[in-house]
Amino acid sequence: MASTLNHTHDAAARSWVASANAPGCDFPIQNLPLAIFHRADSNEPLRGGCAIGEQIVDLAALAGTGLLAGDAQTACEACAQPALNGYFALGSRHWRALRHALFDLLRDNAPADTKDRVRTCLVAQSDAHYGLPARIGDYTDFYTSIHHAINVGKLIFPDNPLTPNFQWLPIAYHGRASSVRVGQPGFGFTRPSGQAMAPGAAQPAYGPCARLDFELEMGFFIGPGNPLGTPIPIAQAQEHIAGMVLLNDWSARDHQFWEMNPLGPFLGKNFCTTVSPWVVSLEALAPYRLPFTRPAGDPQPLPYLDGEANRAGGSIDVQLQVRLDTPAHRECAAQPSAIARTSFRHQYWTIAQMVAQHTVGGCDLQPGDLLGTGTVSGPTPQEAGALVELSKGGRAPVTLDATGEQRGFLEDGDTVILRGWCEKDGAARIGFGECRGTVLASQGS
Amino acid sequence: MASTLNHTHDAAARSWVASANAPGCDFPIQNLPLAIFHRADSNEPLRGGCAIGEQIVDLAALAGTGLLAGDAQTACEACAQPALNGYFALGSRHWRALRHALFDLLRDNAPADTKDRVRTCLVAQSDAHYGLPARIGDYTDFYTSIHHAINVGKLIFPDNPLTPNFQWLPIAYHGRASSVRVGQPGFGFTRPSGQAMAPGAAQPAYGPCARLDFELEMGFFIGPGNPLGTPIPIAQAQEHIAGMVLLNDWSARDHQFWEMNPLGPFLGKNFCTTVSPWVVSLEALAPYRLPFTRPAGDPQPLPYLDGEANRAGGSIDVQLQVRLDTPAHRECAAQPSAIARTSFRHQYWTIAQMVAQHTVGGCDLQPGDLLGTGTVSGPTPQEAGALVELSKGGRAPVTLDATGEQRGFLEDGDTVILRGWCEKDGAARIGFGECRGTVLASQGS
Repeated sequence: MASTLNHTHDAAARSWVASANAPGCDFPIQNLPLAIFHRADSNEPLRGGCAIGEQIVDLAALAGTGLLAGDAQTACEACAQPALNGYFALGSRHWRALRHALFDLLRDNAPADTKDRVRTCLVAQSDAHYGLPARIGDYTDFYTSIHHAINVGKLIFPDNPLTPNFQWLPIAYHGRASSVRVGQPGFGFTRPSGQAMAPGAAQPAYGPCARLDFELEMGFFIGPGNPLGTPIPIAQAQEHIAGMVLLNDWSARDHQFWEMNPLGPFLGKNFCTTVSPWVVSLEALAPYRLPFTRPAGDPQPLPYLDGEANRAGGSIDVQLQVRLDTPAHRECAAQPSAIARTSFRHQYWTIAQMVAQHTVGGCDLQPGDLLGTGTVSGPTPQEAGALVELSKGGRAPVTLDATGEQRGFLEDGDTVILRGWCEKDGAARIGFGECRGTVLASQGS
Repeated sequence: MASTLNHTHDAAARSWVASANAPGCDFPIQNLPLAIFHRADSNEPLRGGCAIGEQIVDLAALAGTGLLAGDAQTACEACAQPALNGYFALGSRHWRALRHALFDLLRDNAPADTKDRVRTCLVAQSDAHYGLPARIGDYTDFYTSIHHAINVGKLIFPDNPLTPNFQWLPIAYHGRASSVRVGQPGFGFTRPSGQAMAPGAAQPAYGPCARLDFELEMGFFIGPGNPLGTPIPIAQAQEHIAGMVLLNDWSARDHQFWEMNPLGPFLGKNFCTTVSPWVVSLEALAPYRLPFTRPAGDPQPLPYLDGEANRAGGSIDVQLQVRLDTPAHRECAAQPSAIARTSFRHQYWTIAQMVAQHTVGGCDLQPGDLLGTGTVSGPTPQEAGALVELSKGGRAPVTLDATGEQRGFLEDGDTVILRGWCEKDGAARIGFGECRGTVLASQGS
């Protein structure tokens, strides 16, 4: 499934936008992710932009310069909208054309007059406020980390933590599209209230969530999609993935565990989900594809979930980190405390398998639909992607290194920061930026 | 929660559209439901219409006549669109104004020139093809029939069919909005394929669904809705319900029962959901509201799910019927066989409680969102709203009275027809029409 590498993957390429060449920069010229933005506190329309270093190329402005032609111009015009649905619908030929054209315009050897004209389209990221990358028709969340499934399963079903279906199909449930927001500085959501059954209680009670959690996930947006009744074969799945983001599936564990039998999570998840603003293309991630393998003795996927390309490059080595910033951190100006670190390469199912599974019965995916991967937890305890795992259901609170505070679950004022990046020798760093959100006190409290 | 009755509920009122006065007509002048339609096989734009007898008042045409004013004209203009989202967003004051204005225009004592002008806006229902009433942002399906929960629970967990949460909260899961279609003559969907674990098998297998089922439900569309983080209190819930429809939650039981542990139904449900074209307002249903009660000994709802209006009129006595039309019926020109009959009044939770529960944690509902009630099954075996219940998991196939055929689950070519209506002495009949759909053979078979 790995794309062929081409000149846009050349690790030596540099941009005339100097900040793109800084070590550790998430957005070098080899990345070129897209977002929806406008200047904060302005009444400018939302429109598409491309990250380069600490700048944004305003694609609505660029579409008017005459610098692009053909598929690249068509794609750029599709980005000059308040959502990327139209761009996602165009498909991989257009996605590639725009990315390659932007690479040429931003490379240090571009003609001087080109640089001058592109420079007029630049907006500083520090000035930007982001909108959702797409109008999300439907949001689906998978459950594809076997380590997460076992960690959480042990808390609910200690004798039988892994359900028999887990190793046979990528399990998923439908999420709530209306409550997806961009996780960016300044974003907060209200601690949800609801019904929970306390351990040992005779009856459930209503109140603010007492076990509020994050879930470290990745998400991806659907490109062209499929009509009802026509599955997407796994060999074509990659052509329907417009790009990836970080995703936080905020969870109210007390509400969730009480409500979810037998129909799954509902209020425990639908009060808020956040995604990072920048959509990273699969082409940019191509150097970080890895063979998809199964542990010895585990079942091999059924043929509709199997395939040459998936086996060759189905996994992606995205480094993931969770940091926590609390009011106490801010009081003493401490850096956020890192509380978990893992890689997306540990997932038991690939994103192509998720697309194939989602559509095998004929369900129609539409441009801009969002699919989450489920919590990304790695094989060791420190690689768990949720507090409920890290703190063993709250019984073993996590100590925050910068302040010495402890957290079993999230407290009011806590800010969770997800970060993701790919890095290795011989390839450019490909970053996802951050996905952040802050817990605001319940309105009744 | 019952609306006050007014002159539009006068059972003696008659329309100058003669078919509206026929005994057994679903759409008398006291009903006035709305749909989205155009003439079949035309390229006319989809727009809103109001049912009267066997006719449709074209609301886009009516908006141009000058016959309406004020809130009614505003509401009518909002209906002159390819979806009713804008109309739903206006809220109950506008809904009532349009319904009352249509009542006056269509009543037999309307002035002759009014009749002449409205007559130019009529389209025969037999000429119509329907679109979805709204662009559905999110679709949620509840699980609020205790009889259904026990019947199905016994098939999966014989010792403990009812989960401990059922009597404390209206359970729900997120459904798939993209695959909702109008269930009208000519509509069919492909039998889904997928993965299932056969009883006694060593491993799951891929194939066409072998246990395809319907689910008799009601659905309702959301009106103004709520911002993220701001729950809708139960006392205000009715103001956010724009109207009700019939809903068929088609289900692939073999796929569903294999996949749904622990996160609930996914592919078992998302290949197709159908709704009836006509949206019946709560005002039209006001004469059929009943007190909401709990069996002695059952827990009383927590305060956020309780309230005076809900207790006084939370239940609705909608008669529901399922009929099956098979290729053998059509060969011998037999009427469809009735296979189930019940009433919506048996639901354990009310539609107001569903809205209050959905939003209690802050989840935002948007105009045009669709909420399903879950399968409506009554207290006796003949009142079950799904084949899996009627046939006891396929072990006791249902005999179709018109042909003598048997059905454990649905076969290719079978058409399921849901019907709903309210009827009692001293009130006009309020009908929902039909929701119908046909099973088409799997593409691989």
